[in-house]
Amino acid sequence: MNRWDTGRIDAFSDGVFAIAITLLVLDIDVPASAYDHLFRGFADQWPAYLAFATSFMTIGGIWMLHHAVFRRLRYANTAVMRINLVLLMTVSFLPFPTRVVAEAIESSSAERAAVVIYGASVLVISTVFGILSYAIARDPDLLQPGVSAQEVRTLVRAVQPNAGFYVGFTFIAGVAPRIAAFGFLASSIVAVLRARGDSGAPGPEPAG
Amino acid sequence: MNRWDTGRIDAFSDGVFAIAITLLVLDIDVPASAYDHLFRGFADQWPAYLAFATSFMTIGGIWMLHHAVFRRLRYANTAVMRINLVLLMTVSFLPFPTRVVAEAIESSSAERAAVVIYGASVLVISTVFGILSYAIARDPDLLQPGVSAQEVRTLVRAVQPNAGFYVGFTFIAGVAPRIAAFGFLASSIVAVLRARGDSGAPGPEPAG
Amino acid sequence: MNRWDTGRIDAFSDGVFAIAITLLVLDIDVPASAYDHLFRGFADQWPAYLAFATSFMTIGGIWMLHHAVFRRLRYANTAVMRINLVLLMTVSFLPFPTRVVAEAIESSSAERAAVVIYGASVLVISTVFGILSYAIARDPDLLQPGVSAQEVRTLVRAVQPNAGFYVGFTFIAGVAPRIAAFGFLASSIVAVLRARGDSGAPGPEPAG
Amino acid sequence: MNRWDTGRIDAFSDGVFAIAITLLVLDIDVPASAYDHLFRGFADQWPAYLAFATSFMTIGGIWMLHHAVFRRLRYANTAVMRINLVLLMTVSFLPFPTRVVAEAIESSSAERAAVVIYGASVLVISTVFGILSYAIARDPDLLQPGVSAQEVRTLVRAVQPNAGFYVGFTFIAGVAPRIAAFGFLASSIVAVLRARGDSGAPGPEPAG
Repeated sequence: MNRWDTGRIDAFSDGVFAIAITLLVLDIDVPASAYDHLFRGFADQWPAYLAFATSFMTIGGIWMLHHAVFRRLRYANTAVMRINLVLLMTVSFLPFPTRVVAEAIESSSAERAAVVIYGASVLVISTVFGILSYAIARDPDLLQPGVSAQEVRTLVRAVQPNAGFYVGFTFIAGVAPRIAAFGFLASSIVAVLRARGDSGAPGPEPAG
Repeated sequence: MNRWDTGRIDAFSDGVFAIAITLLVLDIDVPASAYDHLFRGFADQWPAYLAFATSFMTIGGIWMLHHAVFRRLRYANTAVMRINLVLLMTVSFLPFPTRVVAEAIESSSAERAAVVIYGASVLVISTVFGILSYAIARDPDLLQPGVSAQEVRTLVRAVQPNAGFYVGFTFIAGVAPRIAAFGFLASSIVAVLRARGDSGAPGPEPAG
Repeated sequence: MNRWDTGRIDAFSDGVFAIAITLLVLDIDVPASAYDHLFRGFADQWPAYLAFATSFMTIGGIWMLHHAVFRRLRYANTAVMRINLVLLMTVSFLPFPTRVVAEAIESSSAERAAVVIYGASVLVISTVFGILSYAIARDPDLLQPGVSAQEVRTLVRAVQPNAGFYVGFTFIAGVAPRIAAFGFLASSIVAVLRARGDSGAPGPEPAG
Repeated sequence: MNRWDTGRIDAFSDGVFAIAITLLVLDIDVPASAYDHLFRGFADQWPAYLAFATSFMTIGGIWMLHHAVFRRLRYANTAVMRINLVLLMTVSFLPFPTRVVAEAIESSSAERAAVVIYGASVLVISTVFGILSYAIARDPDLLQPGVSAQEVRTLVRAVQPNAGFYVGFTFIAGVAPRIAAFGFLASSIVAVLRARGDSGAPGPEPAG
């Protein structure tokens, strides 16, 4: 009954993804006192670079998956619209735990809590994306002609292992936060490497 | 006489909505002193999360309504262009009262004023959207073929109850600011839940 | 020989306009000391609101004019690409003088210099837009079929009076900075009111 | 096998380019103490303007080249998607070294390190773009009909001299950082001037 064309959803979502991913750099800074030995001061910011790269790859992976899923849709229904809005809210929140991790790794007392909070945030994003995929799979009328429910289920399943990673590393963060921090980076890179293109989907002609 | 195609209006408006909604996270921060007990310091930021979620849902709801209204337009006229620009100005202003509320809820003397200011800001957005809908309804030539003036009036009316909410909660804010703060969150979620898709509108083929 | 399609130029330009216009709000802030009397502290920020509204309307007017001009183009040539990039640079610079004005109006010794700097910045934007229009008018092959060189010249001329305003108010700023500050607001509103739609231009079908 | 349509890649990339280029202005500021002699305080910020203009032209040149390359593609493959994501990461990182240069040129001990770091960042961007072009040239199926592998190789080669500039100026930065800083500005302007349009490429109809 209730149909939304996907063009503006894509545009708005791309906007939020692009902005969230580009705002990450605002949290990297060399303190004024480090300008006397700037190469060293630059190198000392490694937790900020780690956090930047992890969140960049996490959002980048989500964007690639979002692209792959929405490419298979002719329409969105109202449930998809709402869940997509919640997904964008969780993604646009990520720069905050990213900043907390970058700050906290320098002070050892806080790094455990920071990495757990970060992991929980990524886990929430991953879960909301799972719910979004599920909502799409429930309404096959939304799909482009020639896209099977099976294909969507494969997409849904492609999200799950990552959720597993994130749960695991969030627990590890309680014991060994630095290992977990690098685990999140690895996990986000795996997500980017796993994203698949439009092969099976006939879809409309690509825009120039 | 004066016709503007809606493609770039959508793109520009989506850009402003997406940026305003994503900038909200910049106002969330854990003070340096709270890093010693980070879980607690994280939890203490609840007014900032409340403000973030409320403004995110408010802008998200406006975006959904904007999408639904502009989908029914073939063209904009100059009045619609101007009112849309004012609408974008009021939306892009919202991160400021959001920040004020997040700061003020911690100090009880300021929370009343902060929530009243926030409510007034949302009320202005809601009012400008009402004026925009009214300007569209006045010029049926702007509509896609098959979209009736009646349908636009329904859209206009769909905005009104929310304006009522916002007036009410702004008054409540003078007496019980925290109740009003949660009321604005509830009201923004209701706005998202009420937004309806393209059902009645034939419109052009959806973009892939 | 050298042709660029306008789709991505529009998208990139819209992105820069939308971001510059939305970043303006980041410069509005209530100082921590003003939270005790928040309504008053909020009202005391009027120079920041004036600067916000002026720059919003200035960028909004430029965007409307940009939309009207590029709508009449089939292609851009390399000169147009380069001048457009310089235009975007001057527009994305505007949040800086906006912030300077908002800060300076509070301290009377600085307000003169701040308003002169602001006026000069807007004048540069206006001049670069004039050059852009001139570069387009020089190469009629760039135009959509049915768009006359005359129509482009009208567009060019529509920019000129504003440049006059800005020169005038920049001089006035040296003597009476507050009058000039409101003059820039008035001038930006006039620019928005003067922008005209696609009436004469046949152009492609509007995107939905 | 694995095909991605380029429409959303363009949109997402344009978003990241537009945001990174517009965030640069946030790093320009007049210190509060300089408001007493504001014209002078404004002029003293010249390293920040130099850094702003250099990074703006660098990102602008990358965007023009990106536009020219992706215009020649019918599809992206997964390798192109991944390298493009890394390219966007390096571009969105640039505001950080830009800020470091703007800060450091004022204190002579740090300016050498700052300009070397800046040069290395731009060199990385340039290298990743070279890799992207190479990945495209390896898979001629990705190209629009009528676009030859030769044309892509010309595009690839057009990137190389710039990489040479950046290596050279990064070394010069170790000895004469200010000369290198102006060298990066000159080099970015050359990149913009060298970018070529769609002449040879038939491509799809330009969007209006």
